[in-house]
Amino acid sequence: MKQYNDDGWALHTDLYQINMAETYWKDNIHQRKAVFELYFRKLPFGNGYAIFAGLEKVIEYIKKFHFTDSDIAYLKDELHYSEEFLAYLKDMTFTGTIKAMSEGELVFGNEPILRVEAPLAEAQIIETAMLNIINYQTLIATKASRIKQVIGTETAMEFGSRRAQEMDAAIWGTRAAFIGGFDATSNVRAGKQFGIPVAGTHAHALVQAYQDEYKAFHKYAETHKDCVFLVDTYDTLKSGVPTAIKVAKELGSKINFKGIRLDSGDLAYLSKEARKMLDDAGFPDAKITASNDLDEYTIINLKSQGARIDNWGIGTKLITAYDQPALGAVYKLVSIENENGTMIDTIKISGNPEKVTTPGLKRVYRIINSSSGKAEGDYIALEEENPQEEERLKMFHPVHTYVSKFVTNFIAKELHKDIFIKGELVYKLPDLKAAQQYTFENLELLWNEYKRSLHPEEYPVDLSQKCWDNKMKNIEEVKQKVQERLQVK
Amino acid sequence: MKQYNDDGWALHTDLYQINMAETYWKDNIHQRKAVFELYFRKLPFGNGYAIFAGLEKVIEYIKKFHFTDSDIAYLKDELHYSEEFLAYLKDMTFTGTIKAMSEGELVFGNEPILRVEAPLAEAQIIETAMLNIINYQTLIATKASRIKQVIGTETAMEFGSRRAQEMDAAIWGTRAAFIGGFDATSNVRAGKQFGIPVAGTHAHALVQAYQDEYKAFHKYAETHKDCVFLVDTYDTLKSGVPTAIKVAKELGSKINFKGIRLDSGDLAYLSKEARKMLDDAGFPDAKITASNDLDEYTIINLKSQGARIDNWGIGTKLITAYDQPALGAVYKLVSIENENGTMIDTIKISGNPEKVTTPGLKRVYRIINSSSGKAEGDYIALEEENPQEEERLKMFHPVHTYVSKFVTNFIAKELHKDIFIKGELVYKLPDLKAAQQYTFENLELLWNEYKRSLHPEEYPVDLSQKCWDNKMKNIEEVKQKVQERLQVK
Repeated sequence: MKQYNDDGWALHTDLYQINMAETYWKDNIHQRKAVFELYFRKLPFGNGYAIFAGLEKVIEYIKKFHFTDSDIAYLKDELHYSEEFLAYLKDMTFTGTIKAMSEGELVFGNEPILRVEAPLAEAQIIETAMLNIINYQTLIATKASRIKQVIGTETAMEFGSRRAQEMDAAIWGTRAAFIGGFDATSNVRAGKQFGIPVAGTHAHALVQAYQDEYKAFHKYAETHKDCVFLVDTYDTLKSGVPTAIKVAKELGSKINFKGIRLDSGDLAYLSKEARKMLDDAGFPDAKITASNDLDEYTIINLKSQGARIDNWGIGTKLITAYDQPALGAVYKLVSIENENGTMIDTIKISGNPEKVTTPGLKRVYRIINSSSGKAEGDYIALEEENPQEEERLKMFHPVHTYVSKFVTNFIAKELHKDIFIKGELVYKLPDLKAAQQYTFENLELLWNEYKRSLHPEEYPVDLSQKCWDNKMKNIEEVKQKVQERLQVK
Repeated sequence: MKQYNDDGWALHTDLYQINMAETYWKDNIHQRKAVFELYFRKLPFGNGYAIFAGLEKVIEYIKKFHFTDSDIAYLKDELHYSEEFLAYLKDMTFTGTIKAMSEGELVFGNEPILRVEAPLAEAQIIETAMLNIINYQTLIATKASRIKQVIGTETAMEFGSRRAQEMDAAIWGTRAAFIGGFDATSNVRAGKQFGIPVAGTHAHALVQAYQDEYKAFHKYAETHKDCVFLVDTYDTLKSGVPTAIKVAKELGSKINFKGIRLDSGDLAYLSKEARKMLDDAGFPDAKITASNDLDEYTIINLKSQGARIDNWGIGTKLITAYDQPALGAVYKLVSIENENGTMIDTIKISGNPEKVTTPGLKRVYRIINSSSGKAEGDYIALEEENPQEEERLKMFHPVHTYVSKFVTNFIAKELHKDIFIKGELVYKLPDLKAAQQYTFENLELLWNEYKRSLHPEEYPVDLSQKCWDNKMKNIEEVKQKVQERLQVK
């Protein structure tokens, strides 16, 4: 095969998307308006909420979306698509409308995070990349939020680049972690690109290069006045901590001795002992940074044992979402224009009831109790409904429908923003700090029972009566059609 | 903060690497020759071997390595490094020597996959990106090999882009999967960039767009003569399979009816029933493709239940290495030039014995028994040794040293290749198909007991006597030094 340059993102899709686009194009339905919704079914990590992230990259992808000359050459020469179809692809840009939640928005199972209304073929081809981006970034923002909740006001630093799943994950993962509440990253490129504060001291290699902790710490302090010494290259309590203290005393006011870092061993025991040694030596303000395969579970345990850790460096477990490394968001057709130009709802049935899609264009509202200021739940309604106009809103569980309540005196906050309208970007992305702030503010809306890291209460995500009725009607119609087909055969 | 372009890879590193480089530079030891080795300690997934992948990207990274103007501006204006140090960074390229195993090489715990000999500061800064690349790609090649071993001669297809951890993982992960033995990918961009065969049919959305399987299959067949129909949009056995058969019969020789795809439900039951229906309808050559959260464990189970699946589509569990989403490779200083220009071995001690490094420049040999053609184990020797010259090679376990054997009549195959010599690329990367072929040939070297997916035997990776003695000597020296330091204090 010929060599082709990797010079665009339009082919960052599954082959079947292009196959389907070809079928639509050949049948001349490729321009019909289609509506797809992107959502996940189940919250990751058993968490009570997720944090949406990924919009910046999605916007970049959609803005850049077009097939390059070499893309077209590859599709023609290697995959043998027809010239006419390729002529159509060559001119394709994204001309549709995208609504999405803001980054930092709390999001729950089965609610559309993002909605695409676009010519069928365009909407189809962009599916794979959007899921690829949003699945990962939302996963990491959520994991980061879980970890930050446990860390509390202490400093949370993302240290996982070396274990991330390739380079994009290191960069976009640390950005997502910042949205989820992290304070800093070790990745300098992410610091440069996104303005995230960067953090780091030195590694074991420095001590090894000098073959001596005393010399290494001295030399390091000469170039880094604000210095933190890594103390576990040879022996933490016998060598590393005493040497750090010795150097700090010797250099006195020539440096700002910020503290030490532990990267192995029993962090509870070592941090308590090191704390005593630092205090006894007259360095009560020296901080202890710890790292080594930490996650929310280890942190809770270390804290419950009285570990004296001030700064937490989190690597592998965060950047790969180690205990659940994939979010299962899907992208489903919910409505399509028919030959008369009318929009028709669509559904996908499945043997697994939770996989049955909810037809029709929908909006998501967060129902906020005006007295408590807390969220009562989310409410998914059809496009034409306006829950704010109702005096008494009935909310019921979409599976266990007898679980229901009436809400009065509420604000129905619509969660979707316009991102692209007819191919034009109309959204101004807030800066990253604002997205993080939005996460924190949103978390204030939730009662604590939804924020527990283990076995939280289930936050209500309910369908409106109309939306539910519409779904049932669609299920019935499909069942009847299958039945008819069986009888005909 | 100012906005900076993401226009280079040199900052794709941890902050501490740059901090250390500054210390080395200030102390004028940045040009001293340093040797770092990259290796992991423990095989992933409890597998008996790993497959090395990542070299193509490492080469690309090293070739491109330099700090751009905007990198320097960021380091100056936001991180406040000194002008003099930045002037040094600005001119930095990689001028060292890199040896590495070939992609597709079998690799085991504690053996150097890659070795860098370079000026200290350069060798330090490239650590993070190299680990980021090799950890992920080696992990996925290994996972793919595990899965392919269970799939056997049937077709293994990588379908995971939508669940991959961001875009690079989708692309480089599928390349690694191909090296590990996979046959095809759904990702068109990876097909274009690497020449991997691409595969795919249509999705549920096509059926939903036509709101009718019969019509959708007909329309699809019009543009795709070699057609596979996805049969689970409404009801697999009642609607999908009968409709696929009906369309195939109606279109007859106008199409090549390749078969059907199952994407949900009980794949063992459904594939057996579908097989019967296809056979009864006169389509014994129609293949059954299956997907839905498959991994090596599910595949073994499906096969043991007599599932009739011909093509396996593997997504999430492969592309994220779901059951162990990170490989823990590290990059450790093993030798450094001292002030007299002599190379001195270095060591890192740890409370965890398996984390103690092995000092000195080393080479890795695969000891192949000339009679059986099978590997007896790997042998790590110091640079100056030549195991091929020994008549009788003593191999002993590096921890349980009493476990030992003598090998005669052997070939000692050295596994490292020269990749860069003094900054010049001297290696010609084999094409990807050749790398996959190399994996297959290598696996032939291993006895079956090392290739079991559950509880394989431990393949021997032994140190030469000299290498082991040298390690013990270094440990003693460090212990003594720590002791002296304690007495002085």
